[in-house]
Amino acid sequence: MDQKPEQQVEEQVQNKAQQKQQQGKQQPKEKQLAVKNPKGTRDFLPQQMVIRRQAFKIITDVFEQHGAVEIDTPVFELKETLIGKYGEEGGKLIYDLQDQGGEILSLRYDLTVPFARYLATHGYKKLKRYHIGKVYRRDNPSIQQGRFREFFQCDFDIAGENDPMVADAELIKIIDQIFTKLDLGPFQIKISNRKLLDAMIQIAGIPKTQFKTVCSSIDKLDKQPWKEIRQELTEKKGVTEEQADILSKMVQLRGEPFQLIQQLKEQKIFEQQGKEALDEMELLFNLLKYMNGLKNVIFDLSLARGLDYYTGLIQETVLLGGQLGSISGGGRYDELVGMFSKNSIPCVGASIGIERIFAILEEKYKKSGVVLRENQSDCVVATIPSKNIDMNAEKFKIYDLLWSNGIKADVCYKLNWNLGKQLTYANDQQIPFAIVIGEDEVKQEVVKFKDFVEKKEETVNLKDLVQFIKQRVGKEQYML
Amino acid sequence: MDQKPEQQVEEQVQNKAQQKQQQGKQQPKEKQLAVKNPKGTRDFLPQQMVIRRQAFKIITDVFEQHGAVEIDTPVFELKETLIGKYGEEGGKLIYDLQDQGGEILSLRYDLTVPFARYLATHGYKKLKRYHIGKVYRRDNPSIQQGRFREFFQCDFDIAGENDPMVADAELIKIIDQIFTKLDLGPFQIKISNRKLLDAMIQIAGIPKTQFKTVCSSIDKLDKQPWKEIRQELTEKKGVTEEQADILSKMVQLRGEPFQLIQQLKEQKIFEQQGKEALDEMELLFNLLKYMNGLKNVIFDLSLARGLDYYTGLIQETVLLGGQLGSISGGGRYDELVGMFSKNSIPCVGASIGIERIFAILEEKYKKSGVVLRENQSDCVVATIPSKNIDMNAEKFKIYDLLWSNGIKADVCYKLNWNLGKQLTYANDQQIPFAIVIGEDEVKQEVVKFKDFVEKKEETVNLKDLVQFIKQRVGKEQYML
Repeated sequence: MDQKPEQQVEEQVQNKAQQKQQQGKQQPKEKQLAVKNPKGTRDFLPQQMVIRRQAFKIITDVFEQHGAVEIDTPVFELKETLIGKYGEEGGKLIYDLQDQGGEILSLRYDLTVPFARYLATHGYKKLKRYHIGKVYRRDNPSIQQGRFREFFQCDFDIAGENDPMVADAELIKIIDQIFTKLDLGPFQIKISNRKLLDAMIQIAGIPKTQFKTVCSSIDKLDKQPWKEIRQELTEKKGVTEEQADILSKMVQLRGEPFQLIQQLKEQKIFEQQGKEALDEMELLFNLLKYMNGLKNVIFDLSLARGLDYYTGLIQETVLLGGQLGSISGGGRYDELVGMFSKNSIPCVGASIGIERIFAILEEKYKKSGVVLRENQSDCVVATIPSKNIDMNAEKFKIYDLLWSNGIKADVCYKLNWNLGKQLTYANDQQIPFAIVIGEDEVKQEVVKFKDFVEKKEETVNLKDLVQFIKQRVGKEQYML
Repeated sequence: MDQKPEQQVEEQVQNKAQQKQQQGKQQPKEKQLAVKNPKGTRDFLPQQMVIRRQAFKIITDVFEQHGAVEIDTPVFELKETLIGKYGEEGGKLIYDLQDQGGEILSLRYDLTVPFARYLATHGYKKLKRYHIGKVYRRDNPSIQQGRFREFFQCDFDIAGENDPMVADAELIKIIDQIFTKLDLGPFQIKISNRKLLDAMIQIAGIPKTQFKTVCSSIDKLDKQPWKEIRQELTEKKGVTEEQADILSKMVQLRGEPFQLIQQLKEQKIFEQQGKEALDEMELLFNLLKYMNGLKNVIFDLSLARGLDYYTGLIQETVLLGGQLGSISGGGRYDELVGMFSKNSIPCVGASIGIERIFAILEEKYKKSGVVLRENQSDCVVATIPSKNIDMNAEKFKIYDLLWSNGIKADVCYKLNWNLGKQLTYANDQQIPFAIVIGEDEVKQEVVKFKDFVEKKEETVNLKDLVQFIKQRVGKEQYML
């Protein structure tokens, strides 16, 4: 791995950390030992956490609408569970734990292989689950492009013997619902089938042994013109001009699903090899049409996902007009569970590219100018100092009243500040209301209720306070 | 580490996994390679996830009521960030990552040191945050006692220069609120002060160098009688009989906070050494009294938490009558951030023992007999086969209607099952409602609505269906 890009990333991380510095924070005067997070990882700051939780909520709500359950697995697995599942490239990127005696462990590379292991460990025959968790890759990180060494994946998979394409169709519908609800902008769900790729390679007369290397070239068609890819195939990958000609008629085909199916039938392209896969695709598109899930789908024969384990449907979602790469990917992997168990279980699933989604939502929030409050408190209790009454006792009694009634109330940790400083604290924290008490209020069993948003003040009976606040809060919700 | 207990744990994990096997799952016929999760870790099954999320919700709601924000940090840190922070014992338990070129990394041991590093990295001067995340210890695991190698911590900390004991008092109030809401049974929050421990050792005339080893004996007073501990001190730890006599008058003292303070004053125990700490404790108890947070607090001079970094308040929460050990622990650590930054920041915090809480809640749920549904779907759409109409098209149109209106609807992946099988599927999944359509229903634009809970069937107009279901759902919520 080249050293230079890593140093740049390092600087980007540092810059990013510094940009984030806001109120209540200051720069360390001098660089100390070990005050940084590891390369390619990041801390989530409070505002980022608010966005992250909102994104997760939108996504998991859709998963749960479809009857999915949630599971979790350890962050590391036995090394032997992971090796041999990701191809040569992927294998190199796995983080190993040091052998300190005992089992040989590695950090998980994705959530799919742990899911297959989970199904085998617990002897499931079917399961429709989602899983949100961090995964680890010793990749060259790029914070700008949202490529981290520690990052979240958000997976949804349907395991079990089912009728053809029904689960596959629901999966695509779910992806469509999620990206519609996240509202990141126009998107396209690219769909193809691993078996169509096999067929194209076979039709072109390219030996099966070259399948992987040829696919990795084809997969670049969304970034490079066919001319360049053709050149790479013929000059570097041993594909003949004739074979390339045949391929070129197929791999560049993409379009509205039923139109492309029609075209492929007219041109008799998958009449023998690939016929079954084409029928599957037609069934898939019909089911999707029924469930109104086809509007963002494109049938794209150039789609060739890198991972070894796919056996049928493959899909990838991209934002239109963006340079961000895919925001979801996945497909059918009917043979992976069989590597762990005698009971092979067909599976289909997708992984949502949640880190890129975070980045887009953060950008969107910044541009919107809407205030995203870190401190979600609704009020503080502030006191006017008194010589006759222990105002701290009175203050904390009110806090107890608020907290025990589920009202969010932040405490300022100064016991003897004057009123002005206490109110400034509330303003700095963007807390909308303050409850103010002095000697008079205590004696009359009332409070002054200051509304910073509507800039008004009212006197409220202490016994009505909880009810009064509950009617007020919730108006100033954070955006998303 | 002894091999035998580990093998036992192994078996326990296997047994546990087998106990959990339920409907829709079967045993692998033969043990395969690498189908297990690593020793001392666990998979969370769907029902466990429901409990876990409910527990997290109760806890984070309380944190947020107090104006806390959430953060996250990477699961690994630079090794140099962690070393030297946990004492010799703790240091041995840290998982290191293999040196694969690049930085030397270790998995985090707790969330406190990463929090201190986070404050330094981002230059904070103050922060009130919570953090839920997995931490890692190469300890001898005991699933029964809820001791894992990968486990959740749930931390709440208040960082910043504040008036004495205000944040400390709020912290104890928060712990009291959390365990009251979790409703696990009667509990006790034991409180003391690191400075009182220092004073007791000093008063007894024991050299400072023996502080740690003497404390580790004292800390066992909740499990062993003083006689045994005294013996350990005099026979193994070089404490004289005289020193032990003096200690014995102090360390066994515990009681209602104000009573014990009164007693200590009358007996003039902390008149010189420890006077300041005793005044602090009195202030703390007064603040707690104001905020109604004292009812479960006990002032316990035998409390001596193991970690090196505590400098003031120490606390530990235990369930009464249980053998489970502590369910929360923490204290004040004013000097830890200063190890990373020139700007030392005083901090006080607590960690909630969430794994033990999961175990108790699971047990509680099992005993209650309440059905905890994994599949949270409200309905399925089932069809009566027809020769004239494409019932799958009609079925998925209704699914689209339900999903786009936020109704949770599970799909059965068989296209041509008869009605009975489809309804059995819904029953197996404990889904309360089924929407049934056949030729007649399609023609008349109605559906049959089957309510499995109240065992009745109604005919509903398709255009009223969403409204109708929304009124029905939410009655049969899962417990907790």
